[in-house]
Amino acid sequence: MIRSLLTATVACALLATAAHAQDVATAAALRDKALLDRTAWDITEDLTTTIGPRLVGSPAMTRAKDWGVAKLKALGFTNVKVEEFAKPSWTRGAESAELVAPYPLKLAIVGLGRTPPTPAGGIEAEAVVFRTYAELIAASEGSLKGKIAVITQPMVRAQDGAGYGVAGISRRTGPVEAAKRGAVALLIRSISTSDSTVPHTGVTAFGPDVLTIPSAAMGVPEAEQLERLAAKGPLRIKLNLASTVDAGDVAWNISGEIKGSTKPDEVIIAGGHLDSWDVGTGALDDATGVAITAAAAKLIGDLPKHPKRTIRVVMWGSEESGGSSEAYLAAHKDELAKIVLAGESDTGADRIYSLQLPKGAATHPTMQAAARVLTPLKIYLDQAPAAHAGSDVEGLEGAGVPVINLNQDASRYFDYHHTADDTLNKVDPSQLAQNVAAWASFLYLTADSDIDFRTLGATAPAPHAN
Amino acid sequence: MIRSLLTATVACALLATAAHAQDVATAAALRDKALLDRTAWDITEDLTTTIGPRLVGSPAMTRAKDWGVAKLKALGFTNVKVEEFAKPSWTRGAESAELVAPYPLKLAIVGLGRTPPTPAGGIEAEAVVFRTYAELIAASEGSLKGKIAVITQPMVRAQDGAGYGVAGISRRTGPVEAAKRGAVALLIRSISTSDSTVPHTGVTAFGPDVLTIPSAAMGVPEAEQLERLAAKGPLRIKLNLASTVDAGDVAWNISGEIKGSTKPDEVIIAGGHLDSWDVGTGALDDATGVAITAAAAKLIGDLPKHPKRTIRVVMWGSEESGGSSEAYLAAHKDELAKIVLAGESDTGADRIYSLQLPKGAATHPTMQAAARVLTPLKIYLDQAPAAHAGSDVEGLEGAGVPVINLNQDASRYFDYHHTADDTLNKVDPSQLAQNVAAWASFLYLTADSDIDFRTLGATAPAPHAN
Repeated sequence: MIRSLLTATVACALLATAAHAQDVATAAALRDKALLDRTAWDITEDLTTTIGPRLVGSPAMTRAKDWGVAKLKALGFTNVKVEEFAKPSWTRGAESAELVAPYPLKLAIVGLGRTPPTPAGGIEAEAVVFRTYAELIAASEGSLKGKIAVITQPMVRAQDGAGYGVAGISRRTGPVEAAKRGAVALLIRSISTSDSTVPHTGVTAFGPDVLTIPSAAMGVPEAEQLERLAAKGPLRIKLNLASTVDAGDVAWNISGEIKGSTKPDEVIIAGGHLDSWDVGTGALDDATGVAITAAAAKLIGDLPKHPKRTIRVVMWGSEESGGSSEAYLAAHKDELAKIVLAGESDTGADRIYSLQLPKGAATHPTMQAAARVLTPLKIYLDQAPAAHAGSDVEGLEGAGVPVINLNQDASRYFDYHHTADDTLNKVDPSQLAQNVAAWASFLYLTADSDIDFRTLGATAPAPHAN
Repeated sequence: MIRSLLTATVACALLATAAHAQDVATAAALRDKALLDRTAWDITEDLTTTIGPRLVGSPAMTRAKDWGVAKLKALGFTNVKVEEFAKPSWTRGAESAELVAPYPLKLAIVGLGRTPPTPAGGIEAEAVVFRTYAELIAASEGSLKGKIAVITQPMVRAQDGAGYGVAGISRRTGPVEAAKRGAVALLIRSISTSDSTVPHTGVTAFGPDVLTIPSAAMGVPEAEQLERLAAKGPLRIKLNLASTVDAGDVAWNISGEIKGSTKPDEVIIAGGHLDSWDVGTGALDDATGVAITAAAAKLIGDLPKHPKRTIRVVMWGSEESGGSSEAYLAAHKDELAKIVLAGESDTGADRIYSLQLPKGAATHPTMQAAARVLTPLKIYLDQAPAAHAGSDVEGLEGAGVPVINLNQDASRYFDYHHTADDTLNKVDPSQLAQNVAAWASFLYLTADSDIDFRTLGATAPAPHAN
């Protein structure tokens, strides 16, 4: 039994090796070249330095659009396109907060993205501190009437960033839940794994039918200070948030292609998002995602012969408060069947630690070959299929396009995410290069194959725990 | 030869042990108790939470004075004194800076302590970037006429904090040197070992005869961004700094004593400074110094029998922009001969790694015993004598009072020093306790001895390198 199993395994391995020997060699060469390539660093440095922060609707975002087009052309991409879509924009004004009682103390805050402004002159009210989101939810309707709700729930550091979903609910729906209970404003502890005073913004629930209140995030020490002071006596806080909305604004998805050599109409999509929050310079979020995927595709474009299928790099135009994904789906609905695969790089630039594939693909010889090429980069093939593959490819994913994840180590990412500290000096050049190496080799192998992820997914047995 | 050396060594050790057996046992017990004692943490938490930042001249500093008196009394200190001295105060107003060209970008800044304000409406000018202080010094007189000088020299991380003196010159005399060359304002890279956007303040040269200009520090990413942009083309910066000075203000040195049992007029002084900058909550600088020395002395005060000499804890009242040291010297000039020793804890709360003694003291049996008690805390006895022992004891030191250093690991200290991030969550409770253990055991041994550091210093041979 053991002998026959071994024989079969060896036979399979030989078959796979034979079928892909040249591709595997090319992918491995791309991988090794990428580790010494500085294109991704140069792109990241250029975008963060010459454009800076790139909030949708800002003059900087318009400059970023022109930068993106020029960069794709300079890197040798063809069929460079700018796809405009409607995107109401939100612009931050002056913001401040201070503890009024028991003693005056300035609090470092940043308004949540899309928060409504406070009335002119601000809001001053008694503050009620909830140490968890669940405590706020447990408060009865009307119990926060006229008060400022404060949520100080911390975020857990995790390699896969799982703490973000858990803690992030305070930011996403906290304002709505606090409003339901009568609160006039909400202050949350930043959704942060750091111990820093630098507050983290990020979008909160908004829309014409959303009943919400002015909401901001504060630094971690500030949240801990309020917790300690609340245990000693009543707190009063004053909050000022200004902002404006331009309902008629637009954004752009920008793309360029490494055209396939024999099946150019079959497309693999990879990208990062070009927009950023207005604090910091959007280095880890997501200049590096743009840079990693563009640099990886460029390395493939520089090969003497392009792979069979087209690789399309998309610089997504409105990830932070949404819009790119729906716009792309709407603009490309006639092309969906030809989109072989989609993936996004949007968790900074620390090393990739695992590959997740569409359902049923993990045992395919080409994907097994990909796993072997990635192993020296310290990346393993996760047997669980890829689920959520990034906000910007959600639309495609929902429409049946297979997706992958090249999962980045998020242990450090949420120290800087959505803050004034998301800057170039947080990018580790060697880890950035490891990302490019992984994307380049994976994209090449997939683009030069005939693998049909949809068929594999349809015929795959249900995954089981092991 | 070997045998006789060994015999002599053993004999010396036995002699020292016999002379100090009870004291050493008490010191070791104090050490071990301190490692599990939370008094220093409670003091640090209380001061940073209930008072917050404590700039000289602020209402918070007045509250801190009352807090200090109450705390010393509550901890069992006697002869609690408040010694008032004249100290002109400086108060920060609104501050902002932005890059105007090549594109608008807000810059995180903080005005240097004692900087003059900009004219109302601010200063907007071309900026000239110097990557080192030496480059600024090399610029000719008049060459910066009408310009904003920018110094981006980084600070080196070092266990002994040596990088602070080197990089800190940009802050201390940069404004004066830039003014000499015609500059209208100065922006420096924060004197920081971090990679953070949170800027570091700190005092700069001031006084009636000092020709200076409005000066601020910016975050590390901002400084690096300006360096990169300056390499591409001209920069314009707008700077707004408001501040006021109250020439009639006062400050206070506060002290309390653990009275000596047999030689109460012989005094050992230990302390930290109560004042802080107006950003953060002055946790590492220097609530912990106050807490470490007060908690150490309190442990000694709780002993069934006080040591021979008096231990006096001083909460210095104006370290950050100077004044405590001179005021204390003036108020205590008649007592100088009776001050046996002085030391200060003012480099945060990370672990102490070495003890430096007055000249000639390292071989004294009591100090050898102290070294042995400190060894389990991973503290070594440095053979070099203590030089600068803290800003607040400089006056005493200059007047001939012997001083010691219990050197704290400064590797992390300058990440937070003088910033909004100098907060309680940067204090490591176990390292804080190690500090208390070292101070308690050292202070006890010295206070219960007859050691005369002045005599040892006068008769000691010149130290030699080894």
